[in-house]
Amino acid sequence: MAAKDQVKALVFDVFGTVVDWRGGSISELTAFGKARGIDRDWAEFADDWRGLYQPSMEEVRSGRRPFTILDTLHRESLEKLLEKYDIKGLPEQDIQHLVSIWHRLPPWPDAVEGLTRLKSRYIIATCSNANIGLAVRMAKHSGLPWDTIVGAEVARAFKPTPQAYLGSAAALNLEPHEVMLVAAHNSDLAAAAKTGFRTAFVARPNEYGPKKVADVAKDHDWDIATDSFNGVADAMGCPRL
Amino acid sequence: MAAKDQVKALVFDVFGTVVDWRGGSISELTAFGKARGIDRDWAEFADDWRGLYQPSMEEVRSGRRPFTILDTLHRESLEKLLEKYDIKGLPEQDIQHLVSIWHRLPPWPDAVEGLTRLKSRYIIATCSNANIGLAVRMAKHSGLPWDTIVGAEVARAFKPTPQAYLGSAAALNLEPHEVMLVAAHNSDLAAAAKTGFRTAFVARPNEYGPKKVADVAKDHDWDIATDSFNGVADAMGCPRL
Repeated sequence: MAAKDQVKALVFDVFGTVVDWRGGSISELTAFGKARGIDRDWAEFADDWRGLYQPSMEEVRSGRRPFTILDTLHRESLEKLLEKYDIKGLPEQDIQHLVSIWHRLPPWPDAVEGLTRLKSRYIIATCSNANIGLAVRMAKHSGLPWDTIVGAEVARAFKPTPQAYLGSAAALNLEPHEVMLVAAHNSDLAAAAKTGFRTAFVARPNEYGPKKVADVAKDHDWDIATDSFNGVADAMGCPRL
Repeated sequence: MAAKDQVKALVFDVFGTVVDWRGGSISELTAFGKARGIDRDWAEFADDWRGLYQPSMEEVRSGRRPFTILDTLHRESLEKLLEKYDIKGLPEQDIQHLVSIWHRLPPWPDAVEGLTRLKSRYIIATCSNANIGLAVRMAKHSGLPWDTIVGAEVARAFKPTPQAYLGSAAALNLEPHEVMLVAAHNSDLAAAAKTGFRTAFVARPNEYGPKKVADVAKDHDWDIATDSFNGVADAMGCPRL
């Protein structure tokens, strides 16, 4: 059966798929550095921060640490980087400002329009490793029209563990085959597909700036493969605005 | 400090406060009875169904039963009532239709406008005993513009236990005093206030139809007391649409 005849909710990876985490964080870090007179390679800092993302979650996925929200992991990683980059004595308010960069990341240009179209026919929700408080603030900052937030904090498990997807589907009263994950990362889609989810790949060639090497194209025959949320909305039969 | 200078999120009781559970369920039950040729006192049936609400949650609150979503409790209560009212042999599809009456309850006339005003300045979310899947479907059915769903399923505890409120505030990255509960029931507000929440009472004199005896007025000096969500929006300094 065609995906659009079975799917009742589309759930979205967020960092890289909905928002430009790299462009957004470099831009904010650079502005912060200027305001405080701290001169560093902020693009490298941003990439390093993102580089600590998977290792920090792996502590939880492995069972070595109880479930911990992403805002906390982001802060711990930041503290390591402030030491590495020899940035000392920042007041608490500055640290909180930096952690909340992840609450203010800009959406890709097609995101709000595509989500608005999809919302007219389907439940739309995040299925991200972001915690609820982070995802809600990001949505309010940029007008992302989610029906609700599911994902890691609701499922008490980080992607790509099966429980992150299964717990999200269950929270929406849906069977896995009634839910489609939309993501820019083949590995995320592969893990979701294993639990029975339908899949939509959206290419985001600028996610890593000049450094993009992975996920430039689909590596599997996903239900949908496109390069924008409008492409997903077209494939799912949603009228234009 | 005034509530509106500290509050960052308003969270809402749903049944009775946002939607007219009694009017909505009587109307749907009556239509169902006509379509199936089943003649019963559907107003009494609706009141009986609501009457089983607190006892069903008490099984969980007391620790006798693990956390169970409200859709499941509603179904179990329905099955008891079908027996009591001698309604036999309904197909599974009809039972699911009846359980989902709670997904389609109509909002009070001021609800969508008041919520839309409040959303322009604050995070707005449900803090209800409804599960996420129920609350999302109700929102889509009636255009309730929640930023997200918190409450019982996220906190894994039913109101009025403290964890239902504290877990909801934590999921929004907020301290209890940064969250205001909006409710038509004094007991709900009292339990929230004990955990540190700010409070807004909204009188809903028609909640129980002619049978309304409790909560006709505030029984405590809540931060706000009014009779509509527009009244809450006015008190919280939100511009008119």
